Amino acid sequence: MRELKLSRAFTLIESGPVILVTTHDGRKDNIMTISWTMVLDFTPAFAIATGEWNHSFAALRKNRECVIAVPTVDLLDKVVGIGTCSGADTDKFAKFRLTPVQGKVVRAPLIRQCLANIECKVVDIVKKHNIVVLQAVAASIDAARREKRTVHAVGDGTFIVDGRRIDRRKMMASKLPYGV
Amino acid sequence: MRELKLSRAFTLIESGPVILVTTHDGRKDNIMTISWTMVLDFTPAFAIATGEWNHSFAALRKNRECVIAVPTVDLLDKVVGIGTCSGADTDKFAKFRLTPVQGKVVRAPLIRQCLANIECKVVDIVKKHNIVVLQAVAASIDAARREKRTVHAVGDGTFIVDGRRIDRRKMMASKLPYGV
Repeated sequence: MRELKLSRAFTLIESGPVILVTTHDGRKDNIMTISWTMVLDFTPAFAIATGEWNHSFAALRKNRECVIAVPTVDLLDKVVGIGTCSGADTDKFAKFRLTPVQGKVVRAPLIRQCLANIECKVVDIVKKHNIVVLQAVAASIDAARREKRTVHAVGDGTFIVDGRRIDRRKMMASKLPYGV
Repeated sequence: MRELKLSRAFTLIESGPVILVTTHDGRKDNIMTISWTMVLDFTPAFAIATGEWNHSFAALRKNRECVIAVPTVDLLDKVVGIGTCSGADTDKFAKFRLTPVQGKVVRAPLIRQCLANIECKVVDIVKKHNIVVLQAVAASIDAARREKRTVHAVGDGTFIVDGRRIDRRKMMASKLPYGV
């Protein structure tokens, strides 16, 4: 994995892929699957919707950091598996044969098998709406990886794989932030 | 367009398509293009990230309602065009030849050409993070439409079209909300 400019990290999230979020609670690592996410700005800041119903939430609240790992379609069954069991009684790194990798800034682990990893600090929790606000502090990408297609959760148990890419950079030029 | 059960409306947003948001400011209709959105719960509530930099924000804040319209790939150039001009000096319905349709609950118009339309009330504005919280109150879908593929903005001027769909309903059964 090579370093990815922070100014480009929002492009990994904006299209709405299902993501994995890792945490470390001081004792052990955990992973959750999330598709309720959005970009908040280009710094980049992100929002994720989660709360007490997720075992990872306690670690997020306590240690105020996490890693957003972006999986690709070849990892879909692990992604669904991670989303349907709990860190309360499962070591998900072991169960799904994923490799935790030490990050540069945060204690929560990167996931070796993912396309990209974004280290984040929790900057706010909007309790009323179960929104956790994250600030990205480092990012890396496995640019050599052959499979780069991400997966989008529909929410009904089906998933849409990335299809073809359409280029509208010329039309969008006035709206693109510096560094993209 | 036929009515869509509100309990299914989140499935139109969860996968992260670029959407159009219409507003009515008491005098005229407007449309903006947004891809910073997420689902907050299954009722469904949604969050969108927007603020004073969007002309539509004043109408959202004042009239506290909008319509989320979900466009498909055949509408991409209209979607990009809408996102790169301003309602301050442009009648976007006229310019992009879109047809406003009266909704059931809110004053902001549905867009006839879109795959689906979700009427929403603004229930909160989290000013600190530029997050607008929406509650869906009615939804409709053009089920007869042939083109159903949505488009995902990467954020660098390129867009990813929906590819193939993978079914994991069996694996996900324990996690699916009632009514999906």
